[in-house]
Amino acid sequence: MSLPLDAVLTHLVAGREPAIERWKELLRIPSIGTDPARNADTRRAAEWLVENLRAIGFDAALRETAGQPMVVGHHPGPGDGGGPRVLYYGHYDVQPVEPLELWLSPPFEPTMLTTEVGQRLVARGAVDDKGQVMTWLEALRAWHDVHGAPPVPVSVFLEGEEESGSASLVPFLEANRAELAADICVVSDTGMWDIETPAIATMLRGLIYVELTLYGPSRDLHSGMYGGAVPNPLNILTRVLGQLHDATGRVQIPGFYDDVRELEEARAWAELPFDETDFLAGAGITEPFGEAGRSTLERIWSRPTCDINGIWGGYTGPGSKTVIPAEARAKLSCRLVPDQDPQRILERLRSFLDERTPAECRWEIELHGISPAIRLPADSPYLEAAKRALEAVFARPPLMIGMGGSIPAVEAIKRLLGMDSLLVGFGLADDLVHSPNEKFELRCFEAGMQTHARLLAELSKLT
Amino acid sequence: MSLPLDAVLTHLVAGREPAIERWKELLRIPSIGTDPARNADTRRAAEWLVENLRAIGFDAALRETAGQPMVVGHHPGPGDGGGPRVLYYGHYDVQPVEPLELWLSPPFEPTMLTTEVGQRLVARGAVDDKGQVMTWLEALRAWHDVHGAPPVPVSVFLEGEEESGSASLVPFLEANRAELAADICVVSDTGMWDIETPAIATMLRGLIYVELTLYGPSRDLHSGMYGGAVPNPLNILTRVLGQLHDATGRVQIPGFYDDVRELEEARAWAELPFDETDFLAGAGITEPFGEAGRSTLERIWSRPTCDINGIWGGYTGPGSKTVIPAEARAKLSCRLVPDQDPQRILERLRSFLDERTPAECRWEIELHGISPAIRLPADSPYLEAAKRALEAVFARPPLMIGMGGSIPAVEAIKRLLGMDSLLVGFGLADDLVHSPNEKFELRCFEAGMQTHARLLAELSKLT
Repeated sequence: MSLPLDAVLTHLVAGREPAIERWKELLRIPSIGTDPARNADTRRAAEWLVENLRAIGFDAALRETAGQPMVVGHHPGPGDGGGPRVLYYGHYDVQPVEPLELWLSPPFEPTMLTTEVGQRLVARGAVDDKGQVMTWLEALRAWHDVHGAPPVPVSVFLEGEEESGSASLVPFLEANRAELAADICVVSDTGMWDIETPAIATMLRGLIYVELTLYGPSRDLHSGMYGGAVPNPLNILTRVLGQLHDATGRVQIPGFYDDVRELEEARAWAELPFDETDFLAGAGITEPFGEAGRSTLERIWSRPTCDINGIWGGYTGPGSKTVIPAEARAKLSCRLVPDQDPQRILERLRSFLDERTPAECRWEIELHGISPAIRLPADSPYLEAAKRALEAVFARPPLMIGMGGSIPAVEAIKRLLGMDSLLVGFGLADDLVHSPNEKFELRCFEAGMQTHARLLAELSKLT
Repeated sequence: MSLPLDAVLTHLVAGREPAIERWKELLRIPSIGTDPARNADTRRAAEWLVENLRAIGFDAALRETAGQPMVVGHHPGPGDGGGPRVLYYGHYDVQPVEPLELWLSPPFEPTMLTTEVGQRLVARGAVDDKGQVMTWLEALRAWHDVHGAPPVPVSVFLEGEEESGSASLVPFLEANRAELAADICVVSDTGMWDIETPAIATMLRGLIYVELTLYGPSRDLHSGMYGGAVPNPLNILTRVLGQLHDATGRVQIPGFYDDVRELEEARAWAELPFDETDFLAGAGITEPFGEAGRSTLERIWSRPTCDINGIWGGYTGPGSKTVIPAEARAKLSCRLVPDQDPQRILERLRSFLDERTPAECRWEIELHGISPAIRLPADSPYLEAAKRALEAVFARPPLMIGMGGSIPAVEAIKRLLGMDSLLVGFGLADDLVHSPNEKFELRCFEAGMQTHARLLAELSKLT
């Protein structure tokens, strides 16, 4: 069944003001999920979402976890049993607001500002993720108002711990696999290429993150007494980790690149209007750096990496202390790309360390995170549907991009529910996400609502 | 002039009990020089020494510094103008006593214990350095009591900041070069080979100690966003410092060994009854380790080293944070041997770092300490005098040993006053220096007094 889309789009335009009011209502709830003093507020945001989902026909409920509650809602769609089942994922918790003195308006009093590109709403959560959640929630509301139902069966799943590590996410998904099963997940928590140009992130790097401890002598020693005649864990830590890359920036863990392929997508990235100088300037870097023979976009999107994220050991106070410590530590992570098996890379890292370490020293490896890369198949019909929706709204095709980081929920949904995610987001690089004066451009918010209304129609055409 | 020694030695034996009482008096003063709350006590220990020096004919005074006061005293000797001028150096400050609960008797209530090797006095400072200072102070007292003067001109110089970095030492020596000028310095702040066997330390390694900061990106970055495309200071720190040694343990700084010679002394060390297994077991190490082709004693006494003493940067808290930090830091020291020029080694280290570092990163080097190795000439007549004195007391020749660490005062006295030091000490490895229940064996204390009485006589025979 194909319900007419035009009336939905018109309804969205006509209902702009009350939609903004609802968005502001949600923003006024200070749901800082990581702050126990805000637990009641965080819960209130979840309850607000449950009520709003019920108002548009969803069977919605707040679901308890060991941490912040989840919001889950289901709608059977038009009742004809057709179309793919769609799961919307988002989060209703927001980042803390410190430093408060840098906010030009109170973070939980949404303030509309007018700039040369139009109006923008300033508030904590304006875009991340309350504003983006409202783009699809308002699209669903418009479908409800006009046709009584969305054009496909829809489930909604929102967490309140995204900004604080998502501790309840995996247990909840594991416990509710059947209930949350769907054909495709839709997530709006990413950004556009620029204010004119939409983007879909089709590839996310995976990650293994380990904490390494290298044990040597049985106690801290004086370097005057023992220096030169005992293995110094700090010397050995640097000696071993210093071999992780060669002079061309290639990771030296044997077998590290065995499953790394040249990716179709990388060819398209070469055509992106990427300003490398500007990107590197954001890090204070003048000249491109990294694995030889690769572009900057390949280096951050489709090439695996190995980075030390923290290191410590011995004496680190003021002045000098001539100590040879009993141990040395580092935090180390590898960004992984499609087809690399994280478990195998972890084993290879372990061998790399052991093989380069003298007999009287030993490594202890604590695993803090392990997830494979995510890749949306280029021929996915859902991807095609999202492309059509975006192109219709923005009058230009969306760019297919990669992401150097990972989104834990997307990885968990892929692993536990077996479905891909469409990463269709409307944020801009200058939205000040996680910073004071976070904002969302109104034209992005409205384009988001239009896109989601159209995406639902496009998805309903698939079988 | 040669005053009879026998009466002095007999006087020391007869005066054993009052000597121990004076030693206890000094130990009862809690002169923890590093603790401002103990400043009055620390000063009182200095005043006690001034009084005791005056009582045996010294022109002694407390001398103010920016920190704890110095004690300086002079005695013209027998007045015949003969014999070398001798400077005694020691320190009257002691280490803090924490953890107090591990003391079996109060640290500032000297307690005599009887063990199978005889009596020992337990107190903070029992050996380091109050007890050792008392061995030569009592010898000077015996010479005074018997002959009215020591047999040579003697100056005494004691500091109160040895345990807290000796900040006032160099300025004071610089300001009082002429006054403290002498022919030979005598220091009792080291140990014996074992309870039967005396030792003289004739070689001390030098030291350069630097703090390194490696600057990279202009701010901390997210490794998901930038990882692979920017220089990570933690990767580069380990990569550069990891090249400091080759697989055989040889330091790779170009020119590092240029001035390192094969030393006469090292041949004699091969004959020492050194228990390598026992020494390494003290560090929890089973197999010898270090520069290939060298004995453990060479590795710790006569071979230069390079050790990282501290390292830190990035995220070091619990769990994971995928940061690429803007900077990384390390503390690094090189132990130096005779003929290595510390300034030249420092320059070579700087070049080593710079040449291995990519263009967008830069090192900042802060110098925390720089001193050359110390070597007492094997043909020194003062050394011969000390050997004779020790052999007479212990009925066996002293062993000539090296020391892997440095004694800042000995280096400063060499550099600023131009004189060598005789390192003749009576401590034992199990004296618990710097630890709870520090002790000094009475037979070592008495042998020390006898040795110093004899050493003065031996020195008076030199012209």
